[in-house]
Amino acid sequence: MTTDNSNAIPASLPLRNDLVGEEPYGAPQLDVPVCLNVNENPYAPDPAVCDSIARRVREIAPTLNRYPDREHIELRQAFSDYLARESDTRLDVDELWGANGSNEIMLQLFQAFGGPGRTALGADPTYSMYPEYARDTFTGWQLAHRNADFTLDVDAVLEQIAQVKPSMVLLTSPNNPTGTPLPFEDIERILAACETAEVAGAAEGVHPILVIDEAYVEFRKPGTPSAVSLIKNHPNLAVSRTMSKAFAFAGARVGYLAASKGIIDCVRIVRMPYHLSAVTQAAALAAFEHTDEQLSYVGHLRDTREATAAWLQGQTYKGQPLEVAESGSNFLLFGGHFDKREAIFDELLKRGVLIRVVGPDGWLRVCMGTDEEMERFRNALVESLRIVEAE
Amino acid sequence: MTTDNSNAIPASLPLRNDLVGEEPYGAPQLDVPVCLNVNENPYAPDPAVCDSIARRVREIAPTLNRYPDREHIELRQAFSDYLARESDTRLDVDELWGANGSNEIMLQLFQAFGGPGRTALGADPTYSMYPEYARDTFTGWQLAHRNADFTLDVDAVLEQIAQVKPSMVLLTSPNNPTGTPLPFEDIERILAACETAEVAGAAEGVHPILVIDEAYVEFRKPGTPSAVSLIKNHPNLAVSRTMSKAFAFAGARVGYLAASKGIIDCVRIVRMPYHLSAVTQAAALAAFEHTDEQLSYVGHLRDTREATAAWLQGQTYKGQPLEVAESGSNFLLFGGHFDKREAIFDELLKRGVLIRVVGPDGWLRVCMGTDEEMERFRNALVESLRIVEAE
Repeated sequence: MTTDNSNAIPASLPLRNDLVGEEPYGAPQLDVPVCLNVNENPYAPDPAVCDSIARRVREIAPTLNRYPDREHIELRQAFSDYLARESDTRLDVDELWGANGSNEIMLQLFQAFGGPGRTALGADPTYSMYPEYARDTFTGWQLAHRNADFTLDVDAVLEQIAQVKPSMVLLTSPNNPTGTPLPFEDIERILAACETAEVAGAAEGVHPILVIDEAYVEFRKPGTPSAVSLIKNHPNLAVSRTMSKAFAFAGARVGYLAASKGIIDCVRIVRMPYHLSAVTQAAALAAFEHTDEQLSYVGHLRDTREATAAWLQGQTYKGQPLEVAESGSNFLLFGGHFDKREAIFDELLKRGVLIRVVGPDGWLRVCMGTDEEMERFRNALVESLRIVEAE
Repeated sequence: MTTDNSNAIPASLPLRNDLVGEEPYGAPQLDVPVCLNVNENPYAPDPAVCDSIARRVREIAPTLNRYPDREHIELRQAFSDYLARESDTRLDVDELWGANGSNEIMLQLFQAFGGPGRTALGADPTYSMYPEYARDTFTGWQLAHRNADFTLDVDAVLEQIAQVKPSMVLLTSPNNPTGTPLPFEDIERILAACETAEVAGAAEGVHPILVIDEAYVEFRKPGTPSAVSLIKNHPNLAVSRTMSKAFAFAGARVGYLAASKGIIDCVRIVRMPYHLSAVTQAAALAAFEHTDEQLSYVGHLRDTREATAAWLQGQTYKGQPLEVAESGSNFLLFGGHFDKREAIFDELLKRGVLIRVVGPDGWLRVCMGTDEEMERFRNALVESLRIVEAE
C-alpha cells in the first residue's frame, strides 16, 4: 500500500454533506502471516481449478474487444445448477441474477426498492455494510434488536414491520458478525407478515420484500433448508448468495440473487449495463465446473468451528470463561466481557494473527483458517489474553 | 437469449415509484454478422495479448479464495503509465481510480457528489446514460442545449451553471452520440467558471466539479491535449476514461478516473469494498503490457471515419445529401433529415448490419468496423435508403 491515506477532503469539493467525515468501508488490508479477519475460505483453489479458470479466460479473450453478454445467461444457468444441488431447489434462469459480489446485489436491491422516503429494516447486531447501502441510496435504516444471545426476536421484527412500514426487511442467515443461525420457521413467519404488511408511502397491495442474506449459508447445519426453497411460492422473497465464502472465490467477486422473476426484473432496471465482465463470467463458469473441489473443505471448516468454539469456551479472561456465540458460519464471535478488545486485537496482530474488531462491545470475531493457522491463533490468543489481563 | 423479457412487474413489489414502467438500459444484443451499434473497437486482441491475459489470470488464480487488493494499486500505476504516454501527463497513483467500466466510475461520482437537492448539468444531445446515473442517485438533471451543429454553446453552459448552481457539470469529449470534439479552450473556460461558481444548498467556498467524459478521446485529432493535462492544477476536475473503446477491451469492463486526490478520496467513501476483482485487475494489467497492439488500429479507425464521413456526404436521401456530424470519435452521426429512421435501421438489420437509433430525430449512428464490415454497411445503406425512400 503506497497511497497516502490521509483523507483531508478539500473544502472546495461538493462532497455530499452526509458523507463528510466518513471513511471508506473495509477491514484493514495488512500483510500478516495469519489472516482470520474477513471470513475467507483459507484453502486456495486446486491447480486443476486454476487451470480451468485460465483456460476459460483464454477461450473468451479473443472476444474482449466486444461487450459481454449483459444478461450473463450461461452464468445464471450455472447458479441454477448449483442451487439445485446445494439447496435442492431448481430455479429458472429468470429467477437468478449475478453481480460483482453480493455487495453489488444488495446495492441493486436498495436502488430498486429503497430511496428517499423509504425504510429498510434490519436486526442488529448485524452486517455493518447494510447501513452503507442505505446511506448510498438515501434509504432510511431501522433496527429490530436481537435477543441477548443474538437470536432473532421475531416478535420485535413483526412489531417493527407494522410500525416502520419498511419497503425492505433484511435478515442475515446465518447472521454476521454473530454467526447466529436463523431458524427456517422464523423466516416463514416473517415472510408471512411481509406478505400482508403495508409499505409507507406506497399504494395498497404493495408489500415489503424480505431479503435473506445467505452469504455464509453453506456452513449451516447439514439438513437445514435454505430460504431459496421458498422462492417459487413467494414473489416478495429475495435471497442473496455469494461465491466469496464457502465457495472460496472471494477474489473473483461474484455474488448472486435468487428471487422471483419480478424482483429480478426490478433489479435489471437499475443495474449498470454490462456490469458483469466476460472475464468474470468465464472465471465463475470455470469454478462451477469444480464445485466439488471448491466446497471440499466446508465440512472440515465446520468441524474446525466446533472444535474452536469448544476450545474458546475453555479459556478465561479476568477469571471468567469466554463466551462464544452459537455459529452456523465459518467464524466465531467470542469473548463477551473483553473490556479492552482493541488491546487483545493488537497483541494478536503483534503475533502475526489478524482478526476483526467488530460487533457489540466486549466481543471479537475470528474466522476459521487452516489447522496450522488455528494453532497459531490459539497460541497467540492465550499469550494475548494473559498480557492484556496483566496491564 | 432464453429469458422471458416481458417486464410485467407484479403489483405487490415495492419498486420505486419513479422506476415503474422503466426498461433496462442498453442497445439490443442481437446475433448479427455486422455489429456497428455500441462503438466497440472491431479488432480482436492478438493471440499474444490473449496469452498474456490467460497467463496473468493463471498466476493470480491460486489466490482467488482471498479478497483482491481493494485499492488496486498496481492497476492504478498502470493507468498512470498509460496516461503518461497517451496524454503526456504523469499522475500519481492517488490521482487515479478504477472501476467496472466508466459506468461505475460515473455512478460513484454521482453517489459522492449528487443526491437529493443537488443537480448535475449536461449539454444535450449527449450520452443517454447520464440521466440514468442521475435517476439512480436522486440527483436533478439539467441541460444546456448544444448549437445546431452539436458544438457546445459555452455561453449557455456558463449561464446554466450560474442559474442551476449544479454540484456537477458533465461534458463529453468527444461527445456521444454526436462525435463532436470539445475544444480545449472550451474546457478551460468552463473549468474557470466552475472554480468560482456556487453549489445550491452548499456552504460558501464549495464549487461544482467538472467531469469530462473522455471515453472516446484516443480517437481525437492527433496533437489535441486531453483534459487529463489540467488535473494537477485543478482540484475540482475529474476525467473519466475507459479501456472499452480505443483500447479494445470492452468485455473486461475497466473504466478509470483521473482526478485530484481529493476527488478520488470522495469516491473511495462510496465505492463498494473490493469492487474490482483480482481477475479484472490481472486481465487489465496484461492488456496494458500490450498497449501498442491494443491501440494499433486506432489510426486506421480514424482514417475509416474520415473516409466513411466523406462517402456518407456523397449519399442522398429524398434528393438531399446526407449530413454528417463532425466526429473526433470512432462513430458517425449521419442523416439529419431521415423522416423514417427506424425503417432505415430495420432495412439495414435485414441485411445483417446493426447500427443504433440514438440521438436527435432524423439521425442515425454508426460505429467504425473493419474494412469488410464497412463495405457491407455501405452496400446495405445504399439499398436501405432506396427502399425506404420508395415506401
